[in-house]
Amino acid sequence: MVADVPHKIYLDESEMPTRWYNLVADLPEPPPPPLHPGTHEPAGPDDFAPLFPMALIEQEVSAERFIDIPGGVLDVYRLWRPSPLFRAHRLEELLDTPARIYYKYEGVSPAGSHKPNTSVPQAYYNHQEGVAKLTTETGAGQWGSALAFATAQYGMECEVWQVAASYRQKPYRRTMMEIWGATVHSSPSDVTDFGRQLLAEDPDHPGSLGIAISEAVAACVADPAVRYALGSVLNHVLMHQTIIGEEALLQLAKVGETPDVLVGCTGGGSNFGGLAFPFLREKLAGRMDPVVRCVEPAACPTLTKGEYRYDFGDTAGMTPLMKMHTLGHSFVPEPIHAGGLRYHGMSPLVSHIYELGLVEAISIHQRECFAGALQFARTEGIVPAPEPTHAIAAAIREALACKESGEEKVILTALCGHGHLDLAAYEKYLSDEMVDYDLPESAITDAMASVPVLA
Amino acid sequence: MVADVPHKIYLDESEMPTRWYNLVADLPEPPPPPLHPGTHEPAGPDDFAPLFPMALIEQEVSAERFIDIPGGVLDVYRLWRPSPLFRAHRLEELLDTPARIYYKYEGVSPAGSHKPNTSVPQAYYNHQEGVAKLTTETGAGQWGSALAFATAQYGMECEVWQVAASYRQKPYRRTMMEIWGATVHSSPSDVTDFGRQLLAEDPDHPGSLGIAISEAVAACVADPAVRYALGSVLNHVLMHQTIIGEEALLQLAKVGETPDVLVGCTGGGSNFGGLAFPFLREKLAGRMDPVVRCVEPAACPTLTKGEYRYDFGDTAGMTPLMKMHTLGHSFVPEPIHAGGLRYHGMSPLVSHIYELGLVEAISIHQRECFAGALQFARTEGIVPAPEPTHAIAAAIREALACKESGEEKVILTALCGHGHLDLAAYEKYLSDEMVDYDLPESAITDAMASVPVLA
Repeated sequence: MVADVPHKIYLDESEMPTRWYNLVADLPEPPPPPLHPGTHEPAGPDDFAPLFPMALIEQEVSAERFIDIPGGVLDVYRLWRPSPLFRAHRLEELLDTPARIYYKYEGVSPAGSHKPNTSVPQAYYNHQEGVAKLTTETGAGQWGSALAFATAQYGMECEVWQVAASYRQKPYRRTMMEIWGATVHSSPSDVTDFGRQLLAEDPDHPGSLGIAISEAVAACVADPAVRYALGSVLNHVLMHQTIIGEEALLQLAKVGETPDVLVGCTGGGSNFGGLAFPFLREKLAGRMDPVVRCVEPAACPTLTKGEYRYDFGDTAGMTPLMKMHTLGHSFVPEPIHAGGLRYHGMSPLVSHIYELGLVEAISIHQRECFAGALQFARTEGIVPAPEPTHAIAAAIREALACKESGEEKVILTALCGHGHLDLAAYEKYLSDEMVDYDLPESAITDAMASVPVLA
Repeated sequence: MVADVPHKIYLDESEMPTRWYNLVADLPEPPPPPLHPGTHEPAGPDDFAPLFPMALIEQEVSAERFIDIPGGVLDVYRLWRPSPLFRAHRLEELLDTPARIYYKYEGVSPAGSHKPNTSVPQAYYNHQEGVAKLTTETGAGQWGSALAFATAQYGMECEVWQVAASYRQKPYRRTMMEIWGATVHSSPSDVTDFGRQLLAEDPDHPGSLGIAISEAVAACVADPAVRYALGSVLNHVLMHQTIIGEEALLQLAKVGETPDVLVGCTGGGSNFGGLAFPFLREKLAGRMDPVVRCVEPAACPTLTKGEYRYDFGDTAGMTPLMKMHTLGHSFVPEPIHAGGLRYHGMSPLVSHIYELGLVEAISIHQRECFAGALQFARTEGIVPAPEPTHAIAAAIREALACKESGEEKVILTALCGHGHLDLAAYEKYLSDEMVDYDLPESAITDAMASVPVLA
């Protein structure tokens, strides 16, 4: 068990990166632009101005390689950043693999996931532009709690629409949002026209993420003093997350390692992009050559089974059209426990680099993921959130392949959150009540019919 | 916000202390010995041998100043230790205090509290002596999950009796224990005679910690290959926790600080002792002179309102008699949310140094504690467990006194766990349903009548 590389590789606060990385600057061609949903012409800054502050709109379309992180963001990042990089000595020993496994752990943030990496700058830039209140949607509550934490740091209000089914079944994330001062509505709610309409049809409506987005956007647009915040998918969100990969580069350099394989779970793409993009920069520059692999749930196989098309980001079809790998915006994933990976599309930027051949993708069923998570928890201690169990399962696959081949590969992955508020999922697995969903081709075919055909 | 002292003060793994500290070695007189419950004569090693391995029995009565931490324990400690020391810049700013507040955070452990500091060595020493299985009791589940994690590290079995009311109402801690491979029984259970007897009287018996202890001890004694583990109160448990204070000493030295005031919450005494004892050594040696203060819940005021008497450690009166501050072993605290502080007695060692005048004690009502916890969470980010909200409230009192007096005191406290599995308590507070319990004098008087009178 004694080894040269310690279990935890820390950086001092003074070593924390002070710039986010914008992968677009280093790509051979830029990603296709978003299109206005009505005209199908490229959407411009004015189209986004009712929703986002100008600083974020500029970041969304920026071609600058690096963007300085403001001091007012760094001050809050310092509450938990730099986050630790761990060497999984004990998991390696269990697997009896010659591979060396490293995981970057984002569960040390107050909200317990990587989400505050972007909620904090989003709150900051809005605050700088005089916005006193943000609205957003949340499913199980990871993003909502991250935004509630962030707005509390700048004395802002935060109003969250949480999918009714989660609001009722998982009250604890709501409590966490309220601890940080947010107002939380069950969605559909009686505070928007759209919500009232749905409640009139069905007072027990379970809600959906698409509906919650519509309500949060409607509440934002109705008040010029309010803005809206999104927790994944967009370019600026992925860019804020690159501090994960920038730190991991410094940490691996401290122990003299470069990754042979990088695996990350993908839902909207922000956790994956956050870890992978800085390593892709190094790969494009010829300084290292890792295989970079997206891992998605078999029940929502956006990259591996979706089409690369212009589609809406939301279920209701209100957002700009984005070119991305999509299963169709009307696709409803089966209720797997990794709620954060149940998204019909993929970040346009991740989709673009997948098309360019810079990254690979695989999908894994959830029972294999939870089996890997148990091996992980019993050796490394940390109980992972359901989303990164996909990354862990992929890392274990790779480590076992190394055991077969005898290769001493360096595997890097992202443990993007802890599972302290997801223990019901483990209970299902432990009591053998968890099922794998075999996705019929027709489910995708049917949903793809909803994707608009452009002229 | 920019300050010379960073928010987080880390130690490298190579700087981790390799010895536990035994306060007994430096006291002017040793604490009174435990007595055999039948003979009232001092209890010897043989009396404890059916329950504990010899290495722990030796530690329990040791007069050595330092005891080396075995390599097999250090290897597991490295999963999360050294734990961070935080400077509460943002809380200080909110309070507008000239005081400097530091908190040592134990929520980074896999089980989310300080408990693994002792569960790991307890599992280790048992494993070394060939014990393949440990039994224990747990209330809400903090200690049970810490022992489940620890036994998993050494490939041992773990059997936990969880108080039935918690087993039913709080299934998530049970799931956490099961993730780490433990078997969990609702107590009273049908696997011990005592449990079966109680279930026959009342199939819906809510259980109690005293009953759960009786079942775990009975299951241990019934099988010579099994031993029992206790999570607080005893000398060796407090000694294992001293790694907290030893690290904090090193961390404060890194930033050139010595504490003027140290506050820690006290239930059985292990979190408090873990932080305070190394600082008391320094104080006794004249190298610093902090005020050291125990903080207990107003609903269970062992030190501030209990008597210093020989009493049983458990409700049923099966354990050796220990000289300690007690409210009477039949005392049943009101259902405050800090379940870990609901203990009728106090560690004999903490009681002894309180009698010697080395430490002070205060009690605080839970609503003041949760009000402080909200201020803490909204500035420092971390949501505290209910137990350390008492320490936070005491630190805030001290910081506000400094604001009045203008004194720039250095305040040190222990944030012994996160509250991710205690959010229901916050929900009660936020919905204004939390009550403070005013303890009638008769409650203590009545319970003290159960304390045996020694010849």
